[in-house]
Amino acid sequence: MLESRPVFLLTDFGAGSHYPGIMRAVVLGTGGGGDGGLRVEDLSHGVRAGDVLDGAFVLDAAWDYLPPDAVVAAVVDPGVGSPRRALALTLGARNVVAPDNGLVTGLLARGGARIHEIRRPDLELPGRSHTFHGRDVFAPVAAHVARGVPADTLGPSVTDAFRLAGWDPEDSKDGITGRVIHVDTFGNIVTNVRRAYVERLGGHGVIEVRGARIAKVVRTYADVPHGALLGYIGSSDRLEIAVRDGRADVRLGLACGDSVVFTTRGAS
Amino acid sequence: MLESRPVFLLTDFGAGSHYPGIMRAVVLGTGGGGDGGLRVEDLSHGVRAGDVLDGAFVLDAAWDYLPPDAVVAAVVDPGVGSPRRALALTLGARNVVAPDNGLVTGLLARGGARIHEIRRPDLELPGRSHTFHGRDVFAPVAAHVARGVPADTLGPSVTDAFRLAGWDPEDSKDGITGRVIHVDTFGNIVTNVRRAYVERLGGHGVIEVRGARIAKVVRTYADVPHGALLGYIGSSDRLEIAVRDGRADVRLGLACGDSVVFTTRGAS
Amino acid sequence: MLESRPVFLLTDFGAGSHYPGIMRAVVLGTGGGGDGGLRVEDLSHGVRAGDVLDGAFVLDAAWDYLPPDAVVAAVVDPGVGSPRRALALTLGARNVVAPDNGLVTGLLARGGARIHEIRRPDLELPGRSHTFHGRDVFAPVAAHVARGVPADTLGPSVTDAFRLAGWDPEDSKDGITGRVIHVDTFGNIVTNVRRAYVERLGGHGVIEVRGARIAKVVRTYADVPHGALLGYIGSSDRLEIAVRDGRADVRLGLACGDSVVFTTRGAS
Repeated sequence: MLESRPVFLLTDFGAGSHYPGIMRAVVLGTGGGGDGGLRVEDLSHGVRAGDVLDGAFVLDAAWDYLPPDAVVAAVVDPGVGSPRRALALTLGARNVVAPDNGLVTGLLARGGARIHEIRRPDLELPGRSHTFHGRDVFAPVAAHVARGVPADTLGPSVTDAFRLAGWDPEDSKDGITGRVIHVDTFGNIVTNVRRAYVERLGGHGVIEVRGARIAKVVRTYADVPHGALLGYIGSSDRLEIAVRDGRADVRLGLACGDSVVFTTRGAS
Repeated sequence: MLESRPVFLLTDFGAGSHYPGIMRAVVLGTGGGGDGGLRVEDLSHGVRAGDVLDGAFVLDAAWDYLPPDAVVAAVVDPGVGSPRRALALTLGARNVVAPDNGLVTGLLARGGARIHEIRRPDLELPGRSHTFHGRDVFAPVAAHVARGVPADTLGPSVTDAFRLAGWDPEDSKDGITGRVIHVDTFGNIVTNVRRAYVERLGGHGVIEVRGARIAKVVRTYADVPHGALLGYIGSSDRLEIAVRDGRADVRLGLACGDSVVFTTRGAS
Repeated sequence: MLESRPVFLLTDFGAGSHYPGIMRAVVLGTGGGGDGGLRVEDLSHGVRAGDVLDGAFVLDAAWDYLPPDAVVAAVVDPGVGSPRRALALTLGARNVVAPDNGLVTGLLARGGARIHEIRRPDLELPGRSHTFHGRDVFAPVAAHVARGVPADTLGPSVTDAFRLAGWDPEDSKDGITGRVIHVDTFGNIVTNVRRAYVERLGGHGVIEVRGARIAKVVRTYADVPHGALLGYIGSSDRLEIAVRDGRADVRLGLACGDSVVFTTRGAS
């Protein structure tokens, strides 16, 4: 293969920030002088600041749509500069480099991932900072992997990578208690309740959240009147809550981490 | 041509959202494994949420500057999942794929466009969602067009594509009543009043908006004092309203859809 | 060299704006029909609107990480349409095109830069606007430079390029008075006080800002308790102020341009 593998960047640096721009520059400059065919793409830089669960959701939601040979540099890293490890994950023919803080929880939950610690100062930028490992560690290591450095040569194998609590809902008496794991640009609420669970309950599940009850899971926005609340299976195969032509986050006062109950209690 | 045509993305998903990132991934992955030379660029993801007129303006304002062989995937799609059609437009050597909701109004107004309905499930992602056709329909179809699938093989010819009301100003007794079709990052107000109309009135047009009167159309920001309101012909050849080193949207309380009168009444 | 040099865009247009999208389109379309191998990347579009000092900081902070043959189109340009000059700067094998308003101050301060005025209407878009030289001048000229037009053929040599006041701190009795030159997505405060100055004072420097005193410069966020203020040398080798897991800009009410004192007065 003459072309290198594409590098995707996922961070909480903000879309307007120059930090992702510097990461792009580092990826393109890795390998010495010029770009030598490396390509870098933005997956998202809008993860909520420091919210590792939101970042894990975005990585999981995008995973199956990435080119089969993609390399992801995922940096939601409030513990940067502390002794937390840096990891390289391999799943199928794709790789992710990320801090060991749960950002790859959704990929670990799929099974079959191999993890290695990154211990290759020779692949980092010289004189790395204590606050920007996206630039000094993850971008250059991702670029080297994209150029052909095998992930299993980055360091020792890891079997105890950190996993986030809250990735899956918890069982309760009449259903499950999930939580908000992402709020999108439109104010739509993504929960950690999966399609399979919703379908298992057939038409008998009711969403309870902040005093509101949504009695039925519909197909899409246009299935309810203008301004109405709706529950539906969103594009990441999870239960979502929206307001047609409005913002559910504002209407319900919901943010990442808040609880959402999906129950058969009082359902028809 | 060894290289494929460049794909540009235009959405209201927000610059920080991962939805455009997933669309990029889908475009690059289309054609099976790896990217095979496809290139994807962001035109904008900052269209006001659900505002098809704003999206139509951005598409129209960018059109003449796109590479002559560009393919645009334009997704401002509040009706996603409803029976609204998906369209492919051909104008010159460029193509746009978009929902049939008026997003291509400005291109239709130019004349010469050919439209086809998109009815090619074989080019979509399998098992498409009801809420994210940017990922499941428009991104893969745009990528296939960029790789050489002719737009006129996507489906039947369409002659009744939806056009937005409000694209052009309305005549009034002493002038015209336009409307705000875009507010930019600086708070500058873009109206749907074209340069030709302003020039036809010579120096005799006055802008009336929200109780304010702007007596003269000037050339650029530096032509008025710091903090002053100004009217000028903006970079999209439309009448704009700004405050030098300030925000006109805040000063005047204006948003997309609001009326702006351009008149000779009371002009010198 | 078969491939052209990469073009990086730096503006205050906002990440969601279509103005950068149009600049990307112009770069890719320069040279007539198709892209002919040009590549365009975003450095940042989140410079504070009209804040040339913030833009100069971002350009300086990114500079050493850019590919060695990069061409930057830097457009923070509140004086667009006025008689201000357009410049091309050469430093090493990199080039920047920018308005003559101080945006390249940090590069001038390094020494060794050569500057030429841009006076090549033949390389601009025809019929340039008075408000969007990013599209009409800087994008196409950057693309031509990336394709091989030498910067010293763009116009006469310039020795009096505008330099910003406030790039460096000012000496005061017991230390120096710096200023805030950037606030990042996390609310972290970047000052113009360099690492060398902080290190010269050893552990004896104290930060005074808005009535708060930060008694010690630490290494990274994790070195202080949750919610505490900290001073540290940030990734651009400048003194920064943050709140661990919080926003220093909100806590201290700081914005670009505000003063920050670094002093030995009252230090241990």
